[in-house]
Amino acid sequence: MKFTSPTIEQMIEILSALPTIGKKSALRLTLFLLRQPDEFVQKFAETLLKLKENVKFCSICFNFTETDPCPICSDDGRQKDLICVVENPDDVLAIEKTNQYKGVYHVLHGTINHLNGISISKLKINELVERAKKAKEIIFALNPSVESEVTTHYIVNLLKDFPVKLTRIARGLPVGIEIQYADDATLLNAIENRTEIK
Amino acid sequence: MKFTSPTIEQMIEILSALPTIGKKSALRLTLFLLRQPDEFVQKFAETLLKLKENVKFCSICFNFTETDPCPICSDDGRQKDLICVVENPDDVLAIEKTNQYKGVYHVLHGTINHLNGISISKLKINELVERAKKAKEIIFALNPSVESEVTTHYIVNLLKDFPVKLTRIARGLPVGIEIQYADDATLLNAIENRTEIK
Repeated sequence: MKFTSPTIEQMIEILSALPTIGKKSALRLTLFLLRQPDEFVQKFAETLLKLKENVKFCSICFNFTETDPCPICSDDGRQKDLICVVENPDDVLAIEKTNQYKGVYHVLHGTINHLNGISISKLKINELVERAKKAKEIIFALNPSVESEVTTHYIVNLLKDFPVKLTRIARGLPVGIEIQYADDATLLNAIENRTEIK
Repeated sequence: MKFTSPTIEQMIEILSALPTIGKKSALRLTLFLLRQPDEFVQKFAETLLKLKENVKFCSICFNFTETDPCPICSDDGRQKDLICVVENPDDVLAIEKTNQYKGVYHVLHGTINHLNGISISKLKINELVERAKKAKEIIFALNPSVESEVTTHYIVNLLKDFPVKLTRIARGLPVGIEIQYADDATLLNAIENRTEIK
């Protein structure tokens, strides 16, 4: 496509480098931005810069934060010896949305994946081991995948001599799915992890 | 959702104000941006500011441009007395992509739409009338809608005493659509606008 403005071309190139945004969406977004008041676009640009400037990792749980420790780690109402291990900051958000979990978190920032070049040293595993010394229970809340199994086993092995309880979130039938429509793996998990009712 | 960073919240709010981007996509995009190198985010912010600073309207055709007149209006190879009237800058791009049209453009920036508050004075209609004085032919390439019909009739009425040829782009069967699958309006247009083959 030949544009009458190199800046429009550059904007489209940047926007289409973002996930889920293709060239056509990038063009539509660019034309939308051109129609917005100056203030909107200026605030957009400022927020982008602030995002990289202000947002850091919490030195305890490695979630994104602007204060260190993060609001969750510095909340006195939280149970500090109950640590939920997750892959990414989005997972913290998902669990926080339930408004029920009262422990703290530990964000690994991925799972061991040699194909994608995510080695053990890139993950916050040593930091978790350090925290485990003072913890009562560590809950693994990783997404179901071969990589997360490998990661869990690796960490469990590191912690095997620690007096800490290790658990993983339950796998079973999700709410709203009928047995006849559940996939085999889910159904097998549900049967294996059955709980007593009497 | 409760975030551990007000800047992340602000970024999500801005991104989800863009068309086709919801809260979930905005969150995903924000986390993506946080993982990018500083240079990418800085270039993003700079381009946003440059977009509003550099990109102006061409004083002749009212397309977006960084030079005035725009590259198309100042191209000597273009036929200046053949003017294609379009609603929006995206339409110019679509026609330019065909690489066949050798005239120039006139961007109205909308169609007359009193419901949406687009009155005649907001559109570049007077400017088109001015240009029509020196034009040989004006091609209306507006999207099919009641509003574009109203707009076309309004402009045609203004130009009725001018020695300029007024045309509209053909309506008929698009390439790749079989007659049995065409909608009634398209088929009617195709029959009405039939062309002679002998």
